[in-house]
Amino acid sequence: MQYHLDGFRPGDPERHDAAPGRPGGALPEAVDVLIVGSGPAGLTLAGQMARFPHISTRIVERRAGPMERGQADGISCRTMEMFAAFGFAEKVMKQGYWVNETTFWRPDPEHPDHIRRNGRVQDVEEGLSEMPHMILNQARVHDFYLETMRNAPSRLEPDYGLELTDLRVAVEGEHPVTATLTPVGGGAPVTVRARYAVGCDGARSAVRRAIGRELTGDSANQAWGVMDVLAVTDFPDIRFKTLIQSAAEGSILIIPREGGYLVRLYIELDKLAEGERVASRNLTADHLVAAARRILRPYSFEVKEVAWWSVYEIGQRLTDRFDDAEAARAPRVFIAGDACHTHSPKAGQGMNVSMGDAFNLGWKLASVLDGRARPELLRSYSEERQAVAQDLIDFDREWARIMSERPAGGADAPRFQSYFIEHGRYTAGMSVTYAPSALTGSATWQAQAAGFPVGARFHSAPVIRLADAKPMQLGQVIEADTRWRLFAFCPAQDPAEERSALRQLCRFLTDDPDSPIRRHTPAGADPDAVIDLRAVLQQGHRDLDTTALPEALLPRKGRYGLVDYEKVFCPDARAGDIFDMRGIDRSRGALVVVRPDQYVAHVLPIEEHAELAAFFARILLPAAPDAAA
Amino acid sequence: MQYHLDGFRPGDPERHDAAPGRPGGALPEAVDVLIVGSGPAGLTLAGQMARFPHISTRIVERRAGPMERGQADGISCRTMEMFAAFGFAEKVMKQGYWVNETTFWRPDPEHPDHIRRNGRVQDVEEGLSEMPHMILNQARVHDFYLETMRNAPSRLEPDYGLELTDLRVAVEGEHPVTATLTPVGGGAPVTVRARYAVGCDGARSAVRRAIGRELTGDSANQAWGVMDVLAVTDFPDIRFKTLIQSAAEGSILIIPREGGYLVRLYIELDKLAEGERVASRNLTADHLVAAARRILRPYSFEVKEVAWWSVYEIGQRLTDRFDDAEAARAPRVFIAGDACHTHSPKAGQGMNVSMGDAFNLGWKLASVLDGRARPELLRSYSEERQAVAQDLIDFDREWARIMSERPAGGADAPRFQSYFIEHGRYTAGMSVTYAPSALTGSATWQAQAAGFPVGARFHSAPVIRLADAKPMQLGQVIEADTRWRLFAFCPAQDPAEERSALRQLCRFLTDDPDSPIRRHTPAGADPDAVIDLRAVLQQGHRDLDTTALPEALLPRKGRYGLVDYEKVFCPDARAGDIFDMRGIDRSRGALVVVRPDQYVAHVLPIEEHAELAAFFARILLPAAPDAAA
Repeated sequence: MQYHLDGFRPGDPERHDAAPGRPGGALPEAVDVLIVGSGPAGLTLAGQMARFPHISTRIVERRAGPMERGQADGISCRTMEMFAAFGFAEKVMKQGYWVNETTFWRPDPEHPDHIRRNGRVQDVEEGLSEMPHMILNQARVHDFYLETMRNAPSRLEPDYGLELTDLRVAVEGEHPVTATLTPVGGGAPVTVRARYAVGCDGARSAVRRAIGRELTGDSANQAWGVMDVLAVTDFPDIRFKTLIQSAAEGSILIIPREGGYLVRLYIELDKLAEGERVASRNLTADHLVAAARRILRPYSFEVKEVAWWSVYEIGQRLTDRFDDAEAARAPRVFIAGDACHTHSPKAGQGMNVSMGDAFNLGWKLASVLDGRARPELLRSYSEERQAVAQDLIDFDREWARIMSERPAGGADAPRFQSYFIEHGRYTAGMSVTYAPSALTGSATWQAQAAGFPVGARFHSAPVIRLADAKPMQLGQVIEADTRWRLFAFCPAQDPAEERSALRQLCRFLTDDPDSPIRRHTPAGADPDAVIDLRAVLQQGHRDLDTTALPEALLPRKGRYGLVDYEKVFCPDARAGDIFDMRGIDRSRGALVVVRPDQYVAHVLPIEEHAELAAFFARILLPAAPDAAA
Repeated sequence: MQYHLDGFRPGDPERHDAAPGRPGGALPEAVDVLIVGSGPAGLTLAGQMARFPHISTRIVERRAGPMERGQADGISCRTMEMFAAFGFAEKVMKQGYWVNETTFWRPDPEHPDHIRRNGRVQDVEEGLSEMPHMILNQARVHDFYLETMRNAPSRLEPDYGLELTDLRVAVEGEHPVTATLTPVGGGAPVTVRARYAVGCDGARSAVRRAIGRELTGDSANQAWGVMDVLAVTDFPDIRFKTLIQSAAEGSILIIPREGGYLVRLYIELDKLAEGERVASRNLTADHLVAAARRILRPYSFEVKEVAWWSVYEIGQRLTDRFDDAEAARAPRVFIAGDACHTHSPKAGQGMNVSMGDAFNLGWKLASVLDGRARPELLRSYSEERQAVAQDLIDFDREWARIMSERPAGGADAPRFQSYFIEHGRYTAGMSVTYAPSALTGSATWQAQAAGFPVGARFHSAPVIRLADAKPMQLGQVIEADTRWRLFAFCPAQDPAEERSALRQLCRFLTDDPDSPIRRHTPAGADPDAVIDLRAVLQQGHRDLDTTALPEALLPRKGRYGLVDYEKVFCPDARAGDIFDMRGIDRSRGALVVVRPDQYVAHVLPIEEHAELAAFFARILLPAAPDAAA
């Protein structure tokens, strides 16, 4: 964490000074961004926007207050990387359950009405992420976002008890969106105009309806139950994520929960008739417990408390666009999360993909509202995330089908076991790769940094910070601050040498009128305010010191012009050399451009200055000239 | 973290339910424990006592509110281990500066008025602790304790603005200590009676004076300055802990501070005349800056903001006892921290040793007040901690002398460099070893667990938890909850085998009338409420499951009798096998008894049941018989 830049300030450095004139109190007549719904998607977006007090953001919620008992609980490695950027991953790691290994059970061939363990795997493949796969009640995730928002300069708090009852978009105007919000407890509706509105209001999204999008899809006519229980059992894997397929009683997925005692069970119930809803069966928690006991035989299972339970039909539904854009007009209204895609919960993807939607949208909205990017940038949200949701729907349909298959005999690992293992990268959230676009460069120079695929998330690796020898994860320098990062992986050259590729790059970035840093950084802002340059050298950190560095890597910042010493890194030989781990061309180096949401936008040769400038020029606008100049 | 044992409860699991009838509001007439002073020692003790709402504790403080700018900043690895037990180490790691390497500078032989780097070492030797050496403003440490206290069942908050003006101890009575507290802002003094009082009220301790103890020692007649600054410099090691000895201008110790910009400098000033006080010199911050610039030549050093500065003389003072005990009477009043020992700040020990004092005392007070131990236990506090303080004084005197030596010529590493390296274990807080006593067993069986020296702190090592395959640090199962831990490192046997040493131990602990767990655990309490049994097996965690375990290692707890699955561990082959790392006899195993403050109390053969029982019988009282029985 960096703080005290503009002077020593006592107190919690994670609580930012409140911005003067920040929005607060009653809903204003007009806002920049109106977020409808405070679930995972809405709070991710609000947490992002809260950092920018000059952009007025409000978030409205039907419920009377913060969620106390959430239904979602799976937090993928990818989401944990995002939480690190928001600054609360360590809280999830402390309070949550760590999914370390997954076990598989099937009928015992000798006693087919008994189950027996058939396999055990590490849940997340080695090296896929520095972050663990976690389980934690969604309500706690909400709490962490709410705390982030309360501590942000805008001191953003949701407005509870307001339901969206109408939303219209005018053809033009500064604030073309008009939302009507009706107090749930009664009272006169209020009208808010907004530059942009975002519907994070769930599967029955009123925002989605208002922009004429529809969820379409089908249902598998398969009923499932889910319950969070405190139970006593002699089933030995009750603290492992476990997939069980019994011979005749159906399947169970066990998800151990936070705190060491609570456990979630997804329990396969009956096939439904065509068009039948499971609600019509009048099932109770006792039915779920009885079904679980049948499947778990020969093990005992005595439930002491049912903290929450539900029954549902599996279904997969998706909308074709996530915004109201038209060919001639950039979007003004967006939808995210369950408003766009619904599916079964068992793959643990719902909350993660929803938050991923919002993280994709947040920096784009902030960049456009800040005047840093053209409104056309906003079209990429639906383009990128609809494809991700389509993959999710396809995966979930197949996964649901396999989970309900009757077990085959034979010695092979059953399908649910092999499918789970094959799709580990997918469920960890790592298979999202954005297609080439203005935002995502071509693979022309991919070979110079093979381990940072263009379009995929920036895969962190261990490094040592040069100025203070701190061992750290390079990816964790990326905060959720809407800045771009430029990682210069240097050829094996002396950085003090004037003709080194690093010095040449730094000279271009500092002095050349075409430099994207010069072009896109507002006058008076810190040099890293829009594009944050970092360098990774091949030398050991004891073989160099900061005197070898170009000034661009010791930028002067803040009102005192203090030096920021946290821009340069060296390999961590003990933990693994990042050049080897990520396949960086040691003789040529590579320039890795990373988007504000942690995805690799481009890989370039370090000397391709013009291409670098052109890439940013396609996305960012020139900064306003210095009024004082 | 374990929670939800007695039922699912929404909200932050680190915020415990408030105890009914907890103390609050105005100071009561009588309390169990009165803590005077809310510095590091007072808050460590209060943080410990706050967990026990049935023990009434109050903490009074002269200041009007929480500290905003502290002077201490060094947090040793040992203290970080203690913070982990209190549950806030991760906050310090997030916000603080990590001391990774230390550099040494001396006069450049070619330009003696210039300094040049002479060496660089890893600050903490490899494997000494899983925790880093940290730097963070004392005020933040206070905040973390205050948050712990606010979230504890007793909701303990300091009573600010009260100064101790009188303290008397009666020969007998339930509450023999009478303290007079006078509001600093004016107003009538109040009187509080206490079973025990603890003076954590600093070098000018009123509590120490009241019990007739004195600080004695001497002063080195050497003036030093200290300042926290935001500065711009081309000195390359400004983000390293650095010791600099110039040829003629004196020494500097650089301590980089949290946040990436702030830095502390200890600057050697003039020799003082006999009896002279540095205050008489009328030094200003400008004098300190000028001295720093002279020492740092040829490097520039431009100060932009002085956040805090001070000048002081080096001195070492110590009192001979830390309590008011007499031969015939166990102690009723204690002193801790600066009230007992003062010294120079540069070795970064003061705050750490003070907190260590309080952590040593806290569990003893709680055990006696709970009726779990005899009052004689409290004598061990002064015995153990006075010896620690004596070591500190001796170390500090030598260190201060070496820091003020003029550099010798020659190619050898200067004395301050070699002394620093030699004493790395000391400054990390790891050389504290309590002498044999009722609390600390003999070294008879030390060879069975050579890496857990009796009397030293329990040296954590990586393990994998059997029930959920979580990789973790074994030492971090020790919370600051005043419980004893029994770590059974098992011989290479099948734990399912009835004749295995582990099964025999568990049978003894569960069934034998001499079992210390049976004898010292109150009826109705969880089986691990007083003595917490853990086992470490030699098998890989995939070669066993919980069905192999004796019931004593799957204890039933709480109102539902849920199973606690977190008692059994296996080696973590990738991180290092704990049996190898800590020199455990693989054929015989070992039983390691660990005190509530994380120190190894005893190492025993696993089959020495009688000796184990005898050890606890010397310290703990039999629990009250079950009223219902």
